[in-house]
Amino acid sequence: MAHIDLGVDETLFPGITGPMKYRPETGNPLNELAEVLLRRQPHPLTPGERELIAAYVSGLNECTFCCSSHSAFAAAQLPTGMALVDQVRADLDSAPVTPKLRALLRIAAAVQESGRKVTPDLVEAARAEGAVDLEIHDTVLIAAAFCMFNRYVDGLATFAPPDQDAYTGMAARILEQGYGVPD
Amino acid sequence: MAHIDLGVDETLFPGITGPMKYRPETGNPLNELAEVLLRRQPHPLTPGERELIAAYVSGLNECTFCCSSHSAFAAAQLPTGMALVDQVRADLDSAPVTPKLRALLRIAAAVQESGRKVTPDLVEAARAEGAVDLEIHDTVLIAAAFCMFNRYVDGLATFAPPDQDAYTGMAARILEQGYGVPD
Repeated sequence: MAHIDLGVDETLFPGITGPMKYRPETGNPLNELAEVLLRRQPHPLTPGERELIAAYVSGLNECTFCCSSHSAFAAAQLPTGMALVDQVRADLDSAPVTPKLRALLRIAAAVQESGRKVTPDLVEAARAEGAVDLEIHDTVLIAAAFCMFNRYVDGLATFAPPDQDAYTGMAARILEQGYGVPD
Repeated sequence: MAHIDLGVDETLFPGITGPMKYRPETGNPLNELAEVLLRRQPHPLTPGERELIAAYVSGLNECTFCCSSHSAFAAAQLPTGMALVDQVRADLDSAPVTPKLRALLRIAAAVQESGRKVTPDLVEAARAEGAVDLEIHDTVLIAAAFCMFNRYVDGLATFAPPDQDAYTGMAARILEQGYGVPD
């Protein structure tokens, strides 16, 4: 049970959806941020690649709800599905991603530790693989934002469904509707 | 110099203001989040108390720009000014804050480490001092949000003015205008 009374059935509003329902004044800008960072087109990174960054950081932060949900959202939008998400999370160095995405994921991992861990070398390595300013900016902000979302979800002790099917269902809704305030 | 070309004179747009100018699509929801969490009234915590939570977390994350600026914003709105901010940052246990605010700052410190560090005991201790659900929710989200803002500012290696006067000037502008997209 969450640390505060969210005013909802937590099994129907798991993870971040409960606190967003509880406090829509903050939920609205949080959803807008997620929509721009993870889904809005045109963008040099696909939604699947951006969700992969979110899932990877959420895994590093050991946030069960965010990692399970954004892994499902990434898998639903990547040609190679959950196998690639699992490979990236297990061993980034050997995972079959493009050199550019690998370099961006290394920047994301640095951000997860601390902003001050993002070195000029990490940024130059991404540039050498073709990353442009917008991709570097959005990688830093996606990683930073999930350091917030993960702490928000776990800091309130929200409910994380144990069943993988729940996250597959959420993925279908996100692909259809995007990040809106839940009904 | 920042890791990417922000398209502005960084001395005129220091810290987070440069990236917000560079990417207003994300800057707008970030400013809205800050405005609701730190300034919107009515609220059981004063703007000064909420800015103090932001400054405290930014100090724990060693983010020079955010800690200096939100310390100035807190000082400008707390009856006891910068002396109290310095005392809280130096030793929370002995700082002359209310028992409720001390308990909330302990929750914020836990969030800064990880959402999973927020224990039922920490939440109960805050409740015993009179904290209500909204205060617990907003403390968790302010702390989580500054784990994002701090990483965003430092992950892009933005400019932090070395002169304290710069932050005093920013405080005057925030008190007058709130968190708007910078001109």
